[in-house]
Amino acid sequence: MSAISPARMNRRALLAGVATAAAVLPGIATSVAQAPGQSLSSWNDGSAKQAILDFIRAATDQSSKDFVPPEDRIATFDQDGTMWVEQPAYAQAIFALERVHALAPQHPEWRGREPFKAVLGNEVGTIARFSERDWAEILFLTHSGMSQQEFQGLVRQWLATARHPRFKRLYTELVYRPMREVMALLRMSGFKTYIVTGGGQDFVRAYAQKVYGVPPEQVIGSSLVTKFVMKDGRPEILRLPSLFFDDDNAGKAIGIDLFIGKRPHAAFGNSTGDQQMLEWTGAGAGPRLKMLVHHDDAQREYAYGPAGGLPDTRIGTFSEALMDEAKAKGWTVISMKNDWTRIFDFD
Amino acid sequence: MSAISPARMNRRALLAGVATAAAVLPGIATSVAQAPGQSLSSWNDGSAKQAILDFIRAATDQSSKDFVPPEDRIATFDQDGTMWVEQPAYAQAIFALERVHALAPQHPEWRGREPFKAVLGNEVGTIARFSERDWAEILFLTHSGMSQQEFQGLVRQWLATARHPRFKRLYTELVYRPMREVMALLRMSGFKTYIVTGGGQDFVRAYAQKVYGVPPEQVIGSSLVTKFVMKDGRPEILRLPSLFFDDDNAGKAIGIDLFIGKRPHAAFGNSTGDQQMLEWTGAGAGPRLKMLVHHDDAQREYAYGPAGGLPDTRIGTFSEALMDEAKAKGWTVISMKNDWTRIFDFD
Repeated sequence: MSAISPARMNRRALLAGVATAAAVLPGIATSVAQAPGQSLSSWNDGSAKQAILDFIRAATDQSSKDFVPPEDRIATFDQDGTMWVEQPAYAQAIFALERVHALAPQHPEWRGREPFKAVLGNEVGTIARFSERDWAEILFLTHSGMSQQEFQGLVRQWLATARHPRFKRLYTELVYRPMREVMALLRMSGFKTYIVTGGGQDFVRAYAQKVYGVPPEQVIGSSLVTKFVMKDGRPEILRLPSLFFDDDNAGKAIGIDLFIGKRPHAAFGNSTGDQQMLEWTGAGAGPRLKMLVHHDDAQREYAYGPAGGLPDTRIGTFSEALMDEAKAKGWTVISMKNDWTRIFDFD
Repeated sequence: MSAISPARMNRRALLAGVATAAAVLPGIATSVAQAPGQSLSSWNDGSAKQAILDFIRAATDQSSKDFVPPEDRIATFDQDGTMWVEQPAYAQAIFALERVHALAPQHPEWRGREPFKAVLGNEVGTIARFSERDWAEILFLTHSGMSQQEFQGLVRQWLATARHPRFKRLYTELVYRPMREVMALLRMSGFKTYIVTGGGQDFVRAYAQKVYGVPPEQVIGSSLVTKFVMKDGRPEILRLPSLFFDDDNAGKAIGIDLFIGKRPHAAFGNSTGDQQMLEWTGAGAGPRLKMLVHHDDAQREYAYGPAGGLPDTRIGTFSEALMDEAKAKGWTVISMKNDWTRIFDFD
């Protein structure tokens, strides 16, 4: 596990086009945990929907040779691009840029030092060209120096008002309704549903219960080193500015093994960062559902990856090679355009 | 989290007196997951039993100001010395010494190299004086170089035959019946029960479901770095010979935050390695049960710590300072001698 190597930075770092999303407008917090409608009601009939239904039927049918005992019913979901919108920039990256502005008064030295100088000067072009190391520095410094509790408070506060530049909605409203339906159906079928994200574990834990119905202990993600400290006689878990675990690419399979210790029977992703998670899931015996969300709907959401349409933003990379592997291994590719009748609750 | 620092070795390393337990006798594997009897039937009436019952009553009574919502009902249990016998040596250390013997033919160089030379020569005195670094080397090398699946197979194989030097029982039979009763009662009361061990996470996961009714995803422990590799076209999680996470002392509070992301309402330990877990548990609002098992029963088990009786084996250190903190903070100390009517299922 090379998570402790400074050379391997979080794929959070792979962010560009962020400038277009940098505007943070005030808004109203709304609950977004509405129960999804009847099972898979936002799905068109087709091979993707059928693959989900066939899998669940086999896994839960005691007379099936593919029956999966309840304790082994594990399903893992990538977040960015699989559960919610990741374009034109990861929500967490926007949050980090916001934090640079908020923290600047306490860091006068940032005015003269990159990458902070560019952020504070809103230098759109420079920000778009930030290296992985630049992003790592921004993420580590803005996400540390406080307790877990304080950090999650900041995340919730930000999510309550920050709005997506195109949809003008709270980020937590930009969850894919069809995917929440899949999660709900799997849970109704006895599956334990996990978020397995390259993003920050504690960032996602701040809202996963409310938004996805997934409790903190079922959110696995990238994390910072933390320290147990006494403050005024009371213990605190303090966040430090260095990477502890990189939960992306091979890290997703490793994270699943580390946190769960069981191989999932179902896994959902949308990019090369999810490749090993699907490989790990698919290598077990019995029924295994492996699905990739393909963003091919520029009108209702975005089109990128093999569908083209967006310049390479280094976000949600869905290469031709990944598509080839999906075909070769029988992974199911979900077409947002064709498989989903609705994308958001507000559609 | 200094888990990645080689200077901070696993407290597995704190092992001595191991030589007396080095004999491994063949035996018969038996199921040890019998359901415990009626709730707390192996407990004498007294303040310890009452503390457990009062806590559960408050936490589950909707009309109580101390009511704990079901999703927050988390209880964490140390393993060695809290759930099963840890004297005269940790089971996992005995397993590691066994592995040195088993692997020796593939490592001719060990014959001339410490600490392996002493193990292979059964040099009891030398083994008893092994440093933390010696133990780390033994543990890392014997626990790595294979897949998770292979490792857990070895653990299960060993547990099926290895016997405790004094009790002549399988290690999995040396589980404290009263503690399994507490676990079962908490689960019946809606608590999610976790093992939080300084020992190896994957070692304990090999039997925790069967022995404690605790699934792998609820076992948090010390872990090695792992790597995702392709072997004959199939992915494997390979164990590497270096420490990834040290789940002892402050690491227990950190591990709880990392894996669960919620503060426990109940925590059970027996040594200074559990101190921060109990501090972390106790620092939250609402009802919090903090308990320490005190080994004061030389006749039925062992007497060590403040009860004295054993030479300092560096196992299960229960210092006077820990007893003072327990008194000052109102932690409940369980007297094995006085609070437990039975210790083992076979009593």
